[in-house]
Amino acid sequence: MSLERLVVVGGVAAGLSAASRARRVNPHLEIWVYEKGPDISYSACGFPHLISGQVKEADALRVYSPEFFRTERNIQVFTQYEVTEVLVSHRRINVVKVRGGAPQEVHFDRLILATGGEPDVPSLTGLDLRGVFSVNDFQSTLGLKHYLESERPSRASVVGGGYIGLEMADALAARGLKVTVLERSTALCETTEAEIVGLIELELAEHGVHLVKNATVAGLAGDKQGRIQSVCSDQGETETDCVILATGVRPRVKLAIDAGLRIGPTGAMAVNEFMETSEASVFAAGDCVETTHLVSGRPAYLPRGTTANKQGRVAGENAAGRRARFPGAVGTAACKVFSLEVARTGLSSQEAQEVGFQACAATIKAPSHARYLGGKDVLVKLVADHLSGRLLGAQMVGSEGVAKRIDIFATALQARMTVEQLAQLDLSYAPPFSTTWDPILIAAQEMLRELRR
Amino acid sequence: MSLERLVVVGGVAAGLSAASRARRVNPHLEIWVYEKGPDISYSACGFPHLISGQVKEADALRVYSPEFFRTERNIQVFTQYEVTEVLVSHRRINVVKVRGGAPQEVHFDRLILATGGEPDVPSLTGLDLRGVFSVNDFQSTLGLKHYLESERPSRASVVGGGYIGLEMADALAARGLKVTVLERSTALCETTEAEIVGLIELELAEHGVHLVKNATVAGLAGDKQGRIQSVCSDQGETETDCVILATGVRPRVKLAIDAGLRIGPTGAMAVNEFMETSEASVFAAGDCVETTHLVSGRPAYLPRGTTANKQGRVAGENAAGRRARFPGAVGTAACKVFSLEVARTGLSSQEAQEVGFQACAATIKAPSHARYLGGKDVLVKLVADHLSGRLLGAQMVGSEGVAKRIDIFATALQARMTVEQLAQLDLSYAPPFSTTWDPILIAAQEMLRELRR
Repeated sequence: MSLERLVVVGGVAAGLSAASRARRVNPHLEIWVYEKGPDISYSACGFPHLISGQVKEADALRVYSPEFFRTERNIQVFTQYEVTEVLVSHRRINVVKVRGGAPQEVHFDRLILATGGEPDVPSLTGLDLRGVFSVNDFQSTLGLKHYLESERPSRASVVGGGYIGLEMADALAARGLKVTVLERSTALCETTEAEIVGLIELELAEHGVHLVKNATVAGLAGDKQGRIQSVCSDQGETETDCVILATGVRPRVKLAIDAGLRIGPTGAMAVNEFMETSEASVFAAGDCVETTHLVSGRPAYLPRGTTANKQGRVAGENAAGRRARFPGAVGTAACKVFSLEVARTGLSSQEAQEVGFQACAATIKAPSHARYLGGKDVLVKLVADHLSGRLLGAQMVGSEGVAKRIDIFATALQARMTVEQLAQLDLSYAPPFSTTWDPILIAAQEMLRELRR
Repeated sequence: MSLERLVVVGGVAAGLSAASRARRVNPHLEIWVYEKGPDISYSACGFPHLISGQVKEADALRVYSPEFFRTERNIQVFTQYEVTEVLVSHRRINVVKVRGGAPQEVHFDRLILATGGEPDVPSLTGLDLRGVFSVNDFQSTLGLKHYLESERPSRASVVGGGYIGLEMADALAARGLKVTVLERSTALCETTEAEIVGLIELELAEHGVHLVKNATVAGLAGDKQGRIQSVCSDQGETETDCVILATGVRPRVKLAIDAGLRIGPTGAMAVNEFMETSEASVFAAGDCVETTHLVSGRPAYLPRGTTANKQGRVAGENAAGRRARFPGAVGTAACKVFSLEVARTGLSSQEAQEVGFQACAATIKAPSHARYLGGKDVLVKLVADHLSGRLLGAQMVGSEGVAKRIDIFATALQARMTVEQLAQLDLSYAPPFSTTWDPILIAAQEMLRELRR
């Protein structure tokens, strides 16, 4: 009797979490993973640190090799194989070797789509110029690294002022490049509160990064040798020696659409809490699916490695015959921009209003630890629902003690705590780490006062 | 018509939080605070940093002066006034000036007892020798500081290996003293898990601190000039030039007992969630009261500045006519011992068993942030209830990312989360701060596996 076969499409984060989990649950499954690119299992969030030079060797960002999966987990990983079609009713995929070869038909009993996201690059002239990079996968990042080392450009333009754009600006400035960030909207980091954006802008300016806001990029212009020369936006022309496209990511769902799988309102694949798609035996996970936002209760597109891995585990567990749940996420994220830590979780005040909450907000500044030990202020902005008193979101910025403190709010959000409960938290205190009243509690008290008004 | 008068006994943490809160709630109250000692409103947790020399000026640990309370908050603070008796039925206290003067009778309408804790020093010979210090209040700490600067001792013995004893050992070693810690029991830090105690012991040894366990101190011996010479324990004699008594704190409840107020099973004053004592109009808060442990549901003695301040606010708010609640605490604490961060929250496995839970535990080690950016391992031990799957406690140790991460567990405990819910938390990730799977999630997964066994 032949074994049941689980096929996984995509071998970066969610796909490999799924395959590994399926193997742990079911030692008898045949598990095949197809990855279009040459690389699997790497830390994409480490790319800025490779570009800055803080991480010396690209291999430091690789986690596991195909050999590891084969020998240690009995999982076959095929790299540079593109899945071109999913025929759900036939339980079959069509696969083609990227570097040539005849198409193959592969039968599956269960299928997991973990096709990830792709750069959401606007259609511009000049995208194919030398010196233009998207840094969304290992190859494009290695391309940038090689370009920086061989061509030694002195100016860089980052298109897009979200977390990844800012981390790249930081990394390029650390290498000594003169950096310009072009941001389409009036403010950096969409859905980040204005107070926090203001501090990020100051930080960029202090580190010599030139910020151009309201800059819709119209095209990229090159020299006669086909090398990037300038970025043209409605704010004028920015001369540059290289361009980083950090315009965000969108779900890679062509395969799913062609297969007739349901796409949700966000444009990503719709899945239930078992990570099941609209077709039986077909699961999906990672940056190609949408996620229930646990604060709004609505579908959201939250492409994050953390969420992708959790979803992958659940998809793998269920594809292997169990019944695990992925309830959703609260949209927690953190990034480091020069000496600033920036973090957020839940809904911003604007998002909360849009979703229909009676959103009100409170902002405080308080030292991250005892001032007599050098503690510096962190800024905390909370959003709560006036009607229920429930916490809806939190954003923070500061030079220390921000990234992991946001997780306390994330936990409170997941527990659907009220601000009153938040203010009662028994948080740790020792002068090197906190103040008697942690900034979180001070923020909660200020939010309570606001709610009582 | 005369104003209503609120009298507060004790002016360090809880007492001043209470007075300040009462003032904010009720601008018309007359508020009088009596403090036996000469100092008010200081950071006792900063004492080790004053002793180490990291904090240069003692005044850096003072927060507010009596003048501040008088002019800014219209609160009268009387220092060096001892309240000798509380006559509840007469709504009266007897007060005497510490440095002499006739006793006074003072009427109150509402009373808040915030008498704090006192050093739980065993009755030993030689406690009055020169060079013996308890470091529980500002004066005793200043005494030690002065002694260190004027007598320049080269050896110190710390009696008691809890958090404060360890912080003092660290501080004295930082000043260049040769330090011995004498611990009564078989292990440091009572109720700390063995794996964590083991790492603390290694850390002490690496920094040249000599640890003597199972050492019940029998007495202190001095020279002919009345200066400390050695500590005598059942483990032998330890020659020393100074002794720090860090044997813990007990509630200061004599006044309450004499007044007929109810004392709870822990030996501290019994209060309800409104911080009311057994007598109407008499409230109590801080290190003199017991607290509901929100995991065990039982009364616990948790003398901490954080809890004291929260209780003080509630006592003050209610004494001023409102109806606020203090639900309890989960026993969160953190300390720094040389390069280690040590933290705990909730119940240890032994405590959980004693309370009647089907306690089981799981321990993991995982990097606090990306290894390719220098992340070092933290150790996490979780305790959960086998029957309900509920998280009961967490302890952590590591060189970074411990003290504020414990708060995520504290929040989960306060929300009564199961380990399954804990494993679903949407925690922040960026390589400088975490790994894709935060140590908290890795610990939760290991705990889940243990629970399913």
